[in-house]
Amino acid sequence: MLKQYFPFLSWAKVYDRQQLSSDAVAALIVTVMLIPQSLAYALLAGLPAQVGLYASILPLIAYCVFGTSRTLSVGPVAVVSLMTAAALGNLSLATTEQYLVAAIVLAFISGLMLILMGVLKLGVFANFLSHPVISGFISAAGIIIAASQLKHVLGVSAQGHNILEIAHALFNNLPNINYPTLVLGFSATVFLFWVRKSLYPLLLRIGVGEVMAAPLAKTGPVLAIVVTITATWLLGLEQRGVKIVGEIPQGLPQLTLPNFDIDLWQQLLASALLISIVGFVESVSVAQTLAAKRRQRISPNQELIGLGAANIASSVSGGFPVTGGFSRSVVNYDAGAETPAAGAYAALGIALATVFLTPLIYFLPKATLAATIIVAVLSLVDLGALKRTWQYSKSDFCAMLVTIIFTLINGVELGIMLGVTVSILLHLYRTSKPHSAEVGLVTGTEHFRNVKRHKVETHKHVLTLRIDESLYFVNARYLEDRVYDLVAKHPYVEHFVLMCPAVNFIDASALESLEAINVLLKDSQVKFHLSEVKGPVMDRLERSHFLEQLTGQVFLSQFDAWQTLEHSNS
Amino acid sequence: MLKQYFPFLSWAKVYDRQQLSSDAVAALIVTVMLIPQSLAYALLAGLPAQVGLYASILPLIAYCVFGTSRTLSVGPVAVVSLMTAAALGNLSLATTEQYLVAAIVLAFISGLMLILMGVLKLGVFANFLSHPVISGFISAAGIIIAASQLKHVLGVSAQGHNILEIAHALFNNLPNINYPTLVLGFSATVFLFWVRKSLYPLLLRIGVGEVMAAPLAKTGPVLAIVVTITATWLLGLEQRGVKIVGEIPQGLPQLTLPNFDIDLWQQLLASALLISIVGFVESVSVAQTLAAKRRQRISPNQELIGLGAANIASSVSGGFPVTGGFSRSVVNYDAGAETPAAGAYAALGIALATVFLTPLIYFLPKATLAATIIVAVLSLVDLGALKRTWQYSKSDFCAMLVTIIFTLINGVELGIMLGVTVSILLHLYRTSKPHSAEVGLVTGTEHFRNVKRHKVETHKHVLTLRIDESLYFVNARYLEDRVYDLVAKHPYVEHFVLMCPAVNFIDASALESLEAINVLLKDSQVKFHLSEVKGPVMDRLERSHFLEQLTGQVFLSQFDAWQTLEHSNS
Repeated sequence: MLKQYFPFLSWAKVYDRQQLSSDAVAALIVTVMLIPQSLAYALLAGLPAQVGLYASILPLIAYCVFGTSRTLSVGPVAVVSLMTAAALGNLSLATTEQYLVAAIVLAFISGLMLILMGVLKLGVFANFLSHPVISGFISAAGIIIAASQLKHVLGVSAQGHNILEIAHALFNNLPNINYPTLVLGFSATVFLFWVRKSLYPLLLRIGVGEVMAAPLAKTGPVLAIVVTITATWLLGLEQRGVKIVGEIPQGLPQLTLPNFDIDLWQQLLASALLISIVGFVESVSVAQTLAAKRRQRISPNQELIGLGAANIASSVSGGFPVTGGFSRSVVNYDAGAETPAAGAYAALGIALATVFLTPLIYFLPKATLAATIIVAVLSLVDLGALKRTWQYSKSDFCAMLVTIIFTLINGVELGIMLGVTVSILLHLYRTSKPHSAEVGLVTGTEHFRNVKRHKVETHKHVLTLRIDESLYFVNARYLEDRVYDLVAKHPYVEHFVLMCPAVNFIDASALESLEAINVLLKDSQVKFHLSEVKGPVMDRLERSHFLEQLTGQVFLSQFDAWQTLEHSNS
Repeated sequence: MLKQYFPFLSWAKVYDRQQLSSDAVAALIVTVMLIPQSLAYALLAGLPAQVGLYASILPLIAYCVFGTSRTLSVGPVAVVSLMTAAALGNLSLATTEQYLVAAIVLAFISGLMLILMGVLKLGVFANFLSHPVISGFISAAGIIIAASQLKHVLGVSAQGHNILEIAHALFNNLPNINYPTLVLGFSATVFLFWVRKSLYPLLLRIGVGEVMAAPLAKTGPVLAIVVTITATWLLGLEQRGVKIVGEIPQGLPQLTLPNFDIDLWQQLLASALLISIVGFVESVSVAQTLAAKRRQRISPNQELIGLGAANIASSVSGGFPVTGGFSRSVVNYDAGAETPAAGAYAALGIALATVFLTPLIYFLPKATLAATIIVAVLSLVDLGALKRTWQYSKSDFCAMLVTIIFTLINGVELGIMLGVTVSILLHLYRTSKPHSAEVGLVTGTEHFRNVKRHKVETHKHVLTLRIDESLYFVNARYLEDRVYDLVAKHPYVEHFVLMCPAVNFIDASALESLEAINVLLKDSQVKFHLSEVKGPVMDRLERSHFLEQLTGQVFLSQFDAWQTLEHSNS
């Protein structure tokens, strides 16, 4: 019981030296990746750069205690940072101060919601986000993020929460391009793309071992940062219009409670829910994949608690919403992390950086951070998925397209909500006409088959309809329609049998339909029978008055029904 | 083709004298019912009384041309009138004039939406309103309507769109009760309840034939109206504070186009959609029931067009949203209506009333109209359904309770939307853990059964999971979980077979899960096979790359898989 809510109890007591050294190596590599990412994603969320560092210390410790994935790397991630920017942008706040207060509250509400969902075991609701919707959403969000960072690369100012606003603002500001910034930003972007694509094979080719080449290839962003800081400092680029990160308060974040202004909470509630769900879905899918690779298991409901605790921890230490990141987790896994302790060590690394390195990044150009974001998020964009999905399923394609278009044009919140709605409606629509067939007896056997496809015996007075799916509100009226249609076509029918071998449940709406069918057939002097009703469905029917009113019988097997009714005709 | 969109073509050319006389009798009875109802429901919607008459002329003609039910009585109905009041109440309009303009626009938008849904054949989406949600909604709406009419019976003023507002306003106004109104209203209510419950048996007992007794029992409201008009006139009750209908413009409505103000349209869009769907669902279920009783058929998509045309007709003749009413349709059916022409004759009756009777109802007390509404709507309230639903299905009960509570407390629009959302989410939740079982071979047969329930042969290297439902986004991750769990428990397994006899479709999310399972099992040196995949599912899989990547095979039957894999172990 205790271990369920504090998963670290199960690995901490068998923790050994070998695990310690594996975790420490992984933590070092993750820390090197996390420093530029945390600064960049804070800027993406519209917050001061150091907030990214703050969101990468305590949240990692909290997840280490409460999380069930051994390799998930928690912290600021691109999509959640974009959603944070969108949520805060809705509020039209005046000062950076208010903006930061709202971000802290957002992380706190999101944390509470995640913990609540975890305790109530509502993790399953995350499955309502279908794969095409998530995939489309992340592609569209990636495009928006990349577009929103172009302003830093061009050295202009341009605000916007959707692609149209951003494009419009960029276009208007084209005459104001700052060329030193452009040269710096463009070089950094090209360099980072090259690192991502070609550095690892190059290292291998020049004789670096695989074990060293992989982590070395991850140092690209740090290299870009070091070089551009040096260049900016030596060439005095700040005076030539290159925007830099500037002074960052040195030292660890202070612990505080979030603001409890009721209006602010209400305004952020819906956004916090979306951020929580999207963050959870992104995080849990990478955690599940990585765990399964080592035949380990994660618990989705406990993951909600782990991520919730991480967000609360972020909030009380002046951070913004966090979740498990895809690329960092994969790096952590590849680098050999064996327990969540690796996350705690990375937190230590970030804490040290916060204390000692902040003066060194005074001259860090924002263009460099923008370049690391652009390169990171463009790898998330997968528009080829549109084509693959189109080939496989038109309705999944529809849901994906709606998500992409509305996310690009109307912003992340409406995009994801519409995507989910459309995918659910299309799914329900698909089940609205359950497969069913009029069946007859295959001569000499006890099997019944579709009269349209097989040569089977039928009986003038007995009509049998086999229904191949569960009956519920969306298809209940269709069932009525189907029955009335069949009966209207068979004027001599005296017995109607509904064969239910594949019916796993009958909800209250379908029960109403069965009752209506019963009454109606009674008026037409047709008896209504059921056959092959599954045990749990029968138990439930017995709790209603339907079986008392039923004009016919319930037969265990369709063959029973056939034999009994064959001889009962008038 | 023409007959599909103009259903009257199919009955009009074989129309005969006998049908004419049946229709005429039914029309007479319906007209007598419709006059007080149309006046009362207009007041309920917050509109001048004559608007109710206007909404009962052209809409009936339009439905006669485009509708497919032979007995549906279209016109103002209680629930839609309440929803109209709620929609218009949202707008905070200053004058009755603006209020009427908005009602006309609302009917027009609603008509357009219904026609559009009909042409696009979207009638099936009405099925997304589950029976418990509709039933709960109508009960709650009935309670709100009855409560909202109490002010007329008490002779006080009290506004409100939910039960709390109404109760509060009534309580505050208790000192202002107008006693003549109370006596009049209370007597009318008691009389009408008595008529509904006891007049028909009484008429039978005093020797009136069944054929005459039934229509006579429907004249109760008209009797109440005549008596209270006379009393008000003779006793000069108007001077003693009894509110009367007053002057009504004599003559037929004038044809006009609705207002095309874009802001107004936008504000009314969501309400119009809700009114359209609720109105359609109410109407189509009574139409379907009545049609089926005579083994006739209606076409739900053409019904959308019929009701849409009726609403457009209502709008251009100064009326408000209409739909098919439950009680009037039953009366129409019982009175022997054989074709939609009965509706057209009733329209004629109302038109005559509009021209000649309006001066006579000058002294009609609003309390009498309120009494007819209260008696009519309380028969819609069925709180016993809560208990029946609780016994049958807890999740349906939840959806119903949410609908009732939120409709009562937050009003009709939020109530119905939340009810639909909750019922869909609960349904998806119910399907999120599909039934599945590890199966083995029943010795000496080709049948496979659950290893936990039957004594079956299993094989150390071969693991078979039978899945009993279609695979889609809500249950895809559960499938992954289930497979990883099973494989982790069977360390010696070399072949994993997913048996799919009940899988009717696999959506893109589930395909991703199958791909993930395939990759993961490959990493663990386990081959992944499928068996008993249905034809359409297989066709679709062949359009993806899954089958190329599949490490194992697809077997036609599970027995094939068993025989092949049994001998392939290393």
